[in-house]
Amino acid sequence: MEGRVVKLINQSKLPHKFSIKICKNYRETALAIKSMVVRGAPAIGATAGYALAQAVLSSRAKTIKQLLLDVSKAKKFIESMRPTAFDLFYATNRVSRAINSCTIPSEAKKTAVREAEAIANENVLACREIGRYGNKLIPNKAKILTHCNAGALATVDWGTALAPIRVAHYSGKQVFVFVDETRPRLQGARLTAWELVQEGIQHAVIADNAAGLYMSQGKIDLCIVGADRVVRNGDFANKIGTYEKSVVAKENDIPFYVAAPLSTFDFSRKTGSQIPIEERDEEEVLYVRGNVGSKLMKVRIAPTKSKALNPAFDITPAKYVTAFITERGIFKPNQLKKLGRG
Amino acid sequence: MEGRVVKLINQSKLPHKFSIKICKNYRETALAIKSMVVRGAPAIGATAGYALAQAVLSSRAKTIKQLLLDVSKAKKFIESMRPTAFDLFYATNRVSRAINSCTIPSEAKKTAVREAEAIANENVLACREIGRYGNKLIPNKAKILTHCNAGALATVDWGTALAPIRVAHYSGKQVFVFVDETRPRLQGARLTAWELVQEGIQHAVIADNAAGLYMSQGKIDLCIVGADRVVRNGDFANKIGTYEKSVVAKENDIPFYVAAPLSTFDFSRKTGSQIPIEERDEEEVLYVRGNVGSKLMKVRIAPTKSKALNPAFDITPAKYVTAFITERGIFKPNQLKKLGRG
Repeated sequence: MEGRVVKLINQSKLPHKFSIKICKNYRETALAIKSMVVRGAPAIGATAGYALAQAVLSSRAKTIKQLLLDVSKAKKFIESMRPTAFDLFYATNRVSRAINSCTIPSEAKKTAVREAEAIANENVLACREIGRYGNKLIPNKAKILTHCNAGALATVDWGTALAPIRVAHYSGKQVFVFVDETRPRLQGARLTAWELVQEGIQHAVIADNAAGLYMSQGKIDLCIVGADRVVRNGDFANKIGTYEKSVVAKENDIPFYVAAPLSTFDFSRKTGSQIPIEERDEEEVLYVRGNVGSKLMKVRIAPTKSKALNPAFDITPAKYVTAFITERGIFKPNQLKKLGRG
Repeated sequence: MEGRVVKLINQSKLPHKFSIKICKNYRETALAIKSMVVRGAPAIGATAGYALAQAVLSSRAKTIKQLLLDVSKAKKFIESMRPTAFDLFYATNRVSRAINSCTIPSEAKKTAVREAEAIANENVLACREIGRYGNKLIPNKAKILTHCNAGALATVDWGTALAPIRVAHYSGKQVFVFVDETRPRLQGARLTAWELVQEGIQHAVIADNAAGLYMSQGKIDLCIVGADRVVRNGDFANKIGTYEKSVVAKENDIPFYVAAPLSTFDFSRKTGSQIPIEERDEEEVLYVRGNVGSKLMKVRIAPTKSKALNPAFDITPAKYVTAFITERGIFKPNQLKKLGRG
């Protein structure tokens, strides 16, 4: 955030073009969340915090009461952008709570910006700690499967699932990453692969369908994914396809880790069945976006008369999770209660 | 086959363009198998039988001994096109065996064509029987998951996995098909969806990643897939991703059926680990082909520096198979021995 402007890496243009999207007001920032210019639960959270701060800054209210009304409207708008990632609600609630005790609008404006920045900064620290703890789970020469993008792009820096892989790589371990391409939006092929290229980490993109074969052949030592929302019993929502990978991993006795900061944990919900799952436009399945040279194009892959269904997330029950990697350490699903109290 | 020419629906152009590929000699026909102008185990088998018949027809050998030498060379060439689908070897071996007892070249020429035609015709009958038996497993209002294309395009007519669905549809049952798009080559989105559109069968294309969610939500009543090779213990090879679906189906107590004619059964091999798996070009993963209007284009989805791995098949162990649907009836994996003897 610079002044009243939020600047975002436009992830929908990667890996072929690196560009910055400038959002001049909270509505533009919120819509960047909806259109997935920014995506990944912690990055959505940080962006939503800044969006609400923008709303506070732009309010012309003369009284704190009026300002809180303006902000409450903006908060609802921002929260309506995407339903699944908990970080979004975590961030808007934090900024909103922080200004609740303010007495004059100018104080609220400073407070909102400070709180939004705190959320972003805390996420950087949390991801670094996730990297440090997660690194302990990665043996030298590990072959690691990851799904979707839970890298620096999905967070503020470091990433969640990719943080342990980065730390392992920089600490001198050899690692090889199987990158699920992650249809329909291809965040694996487009974003995770792009991040791994930047870091010089060895990897291969695979069709999502191929992960099971490599697991059954003993070619994958562990899986690490991110999360969009973890609930009290250890069930979690993540990018569509995560559930399948977790079932096949368990069937093949391969550890399955979920890397997520505490801002992704929703202790108000008991089980995964209470997590809302976003259904996105069928066009994301019927068309594929990619590049012809430097030009971004979309091609239709199905007959014009066919329809598609496009759930963006699925729910993985706790029984398939080996452990959660958080900034406070590594927790088995049945140990999450400890975190809830903290 | 017309005269010495083999005519194939060019499946690599579907669903956007229906065109016929004309193969003037056995090499062209064989290369159409390699480049997947024709694909699907039984269709590959029928085509390979015709290819070998073309080789016999075009031989200028004056003696039967010389002709058999020519044919043996052609047979090796045809068999080197793709390693996994058993029907290919079934067909070349049948045509080759049929001419072995011939005494003069002209007799061999007639025999080869007759045998190739018999293979194709038997496949039509086999698929129709598979449809008839398989229909009994489909309740009214069934929601069915299928992977890849095991339809009429993959066979000579009717299809294997799609045959029971067709018969169910024409017998007045309501059915709904979840069509796995089937990356990397998208045979589900391109071919299965196209066939279902032609027949007016209700369906939705889904990302391969979404099948698990629908299974876990109880929205899928049964799965039917085809096979590229079934071996003695009931393990089978099929399009990459089949293994994952079978594991998740079993985890959710959903019946998982494999529809295949006897020409796909390789009783010479004991277990799935003995089936060769084809590794295809990484370009199929790194690029996606589709249409912009009527123009077929390919777009790159991954960074230029990223590599990909592209196994075309995986092996599903027998324990995940509820039953095989064949032209002789329905068999559990442990009943396959009966078929082997017949």
